[in-house]
Amino acid sequence: MVIVDLIKEISKRGSLVDQAILELLPIGHPDELYSAMRYLFDAGGKRLRPATLILATEAVGGNPKDVLPAATAVELVHNFTLIHDDIMDQDKLRRGLPSVHIKWGLSGAILAGDTLYSKSFYILGQNKAEPSRMLECLTLMSIVCTEICEGQWLDIGFELEDTVSEAEYIEMVVKKTGVLYAASAKIGAILGGGTQKEAQALWDYGRLIGVGFQIFDDVLDLITPEDILGKVRGSDIMEGKKTLIYIHAKENNVTLDIFGKKNVSRKEIDNALKILENSGSIDYAIKTANNYINEGKARLDILPDTEAKEILLALADYLVERKF
Amino acid sequence: MVIVDLIKEISKRGSLVDQAILELLPIGHPDELYSAMRYLFDAGGKRLRPATLILATEAVGGNPKDVLPAATAVELVHNFTLIHDDIMDQDKLRRGLPSVHIKWGLSGAILAGDTLYSKSFYILGQNKAEPSRMLECLTLMSIVCTEICEGQWLDIGFELEDTVSEAEYIEMVVKKTGVLYAASAKIGAILGGGTQKEAQALWDYGRLIGVGFQIFDDVLDLITPEDILGKVRGSDIMEGKKTLIYIHAKENNVTLDIFGKKNVSRKEIDNALKILENSGSIDYAIKTANNYINEGKARLDILPDTEAKEILLALADYLVERKF
Repeated sequence: MVIVDLIKEISKRGSLVDQAILELLPIGHPDELYSAMRYLFDAGGKRLRPATLILATEAVGGNPKDVLPAATAVELVHNFTLIHDDIMDQDKLRRGLPSVHIKWGLSGAILAGDTLYSKSFYILGQNKAEPSRMLECLTLMSIVCTEICEGQWLDIGFELEDTVSEAEYIEMVVKKTGVLYAASAKIGAILGGGTQKEAQALWDYGRLIGVGFQIFDDVLDLITPEDILGKVRGSDIMEGKKTLIYIHAKENNVTLDIFGKKNVSRKEIDNALKILENSGSIDYAIKTANNYINEGKARLDILPDTEAKEILLALADYLVERKF
Repeated sequence: MVIVDLIKEISKRGSLVDQAILELLPIGHPDELYSAMRYLFDAGGKRLRPATLILATEAVGGNPKDVLPAATAVELVHNFTLIHDDIMDQDKLRRGLPSVHIKWGLSGAILAGDTLYSKSFYILGQNKAEPSRMLECLTLMSIVCTEICEGQWLDIGFELEDTVSEAEYIEMVVKKTGVLYAASAKIGAILGGGTQKEAQALWDYGRLIGVGFQIFDDVLDLITPEDILGKVRGSDIMEGKKTLIYIHAKENNVTLDIFGKKNVSRKEIDNALKILENSGSIDYAIKTANNYINEGKARLDILPDTEAKEILLALADYLVERKF
């Protein structure tokens, strides 16, 4: 499947969610609170998680129209984490706009996130399915939300650690990014009437491609031209983020002078990039990301061949082929 | 029922929850995150909400042992709101100890609250009951969590308002305090096998006594001697909080010079207290609190006469008879 067709298929499903939210999360009272909650959703995003959920439903023979509350819920959980993460990371911009805590202040952003959190559970609970399947989905969501918080806690903690192992890094990424993709795919399977085996395969698919996606994101931060990236290239290095690239370099006794230093020149970043190319650290990260993607795709072997399965496979490839 | 017996009955049920949490919320990984989550729970509290839940179960003929996950969940929701509220209100002390954000920093407190939030849903979901009743409880909890956030948003907004009406104040208190008592009582009824009518009566009971409790709390802030109160008397006035006492005074054209002023003398506070006594504002708040309590108690008329019902009635009275 060529990329332009993939994007069309993702957008088609994303726009179902864009419509559903008008009914599922109307501006309530107090209206400013609801505006803050809707702000990031309305600002855009690729809707990869709800699209994954809907495609999983289709892949097990379900109807997309029957899972729109669940698809909306996973996107809202994602938005909730963005709002609180931006407070913690002191990020002032998100999707090209001032972050929620910049626009509504600290208390406003804490509350907008908290309210999105409970609304996600409420909206997920509005999906129509047999109660035992619904209960399984709600419990799964609560487990995943706990893991996302654990992942963020680990990520923050890494800043204070001298050394982070690859295993520790992967654990963090699984929790911070992998499990929400995993839950999206599995909830889609459960609500679409899939078997336990299908649901488990889709969980694994989501978890693995989520990890591949995040590792490749760190690569893009280094190799993408700034006009495409929309922010300073190499910002992870300057912020001292312990990415897989950094961990590989450190394990190979390669040191970067600019690690953790603000305001370095473009030339110094180019130089760091060259060092990481020579040490094989960038190639190692790309290879690892691809391994996760391929492992994820392989889990879908048990599914019947459908258009939805084809799109899920193409989506996995896209995550490590995209330019930004 | 005399107060000493009431306290004994509440503690008996509270300690069931103190035991249950060891199994339901063990210290996980990362352990510091779990320590931050358990901190306020372990620091004490009267366990009024879980006791209300357990008593509601008993009052409809259910077994306390069958609702311990749900009882634990409502206490954890309460703790989550305390952690995030303390950040927003910049309160440095809670239950006589440094607040979570003082001990673990802003990011630590946001994450400890967020994780408690998802764990509350998870633990509530661990209760054993038929799936349709469980689903009703989970949905109810999500609605109530949303309303608590709305109430906190309104409360913060009142600081910027010139005038707040009694109706607006009551709406805020219902959301910020009433609904969690209401949900505790109703969830107890649902899981205890109560009828829809019993569940509704217990919801109303909880909501009404929760409001009475909060209004009386504002009275205690003014009339309780400082050695019993454990903080400066009249702090609400100095912080410019728009309590029912203040709203009544303002509607009767009574002005307080020290409203919203820090560092006023004890003599000035005594003087303000006298003014509010003369204007009938304190009496008005006490009367209003009592009305809510009595209305709440009346809702229990439809329940069969049991020991649990007697304790629920005594608990309601206690909320406006306590000295601190």
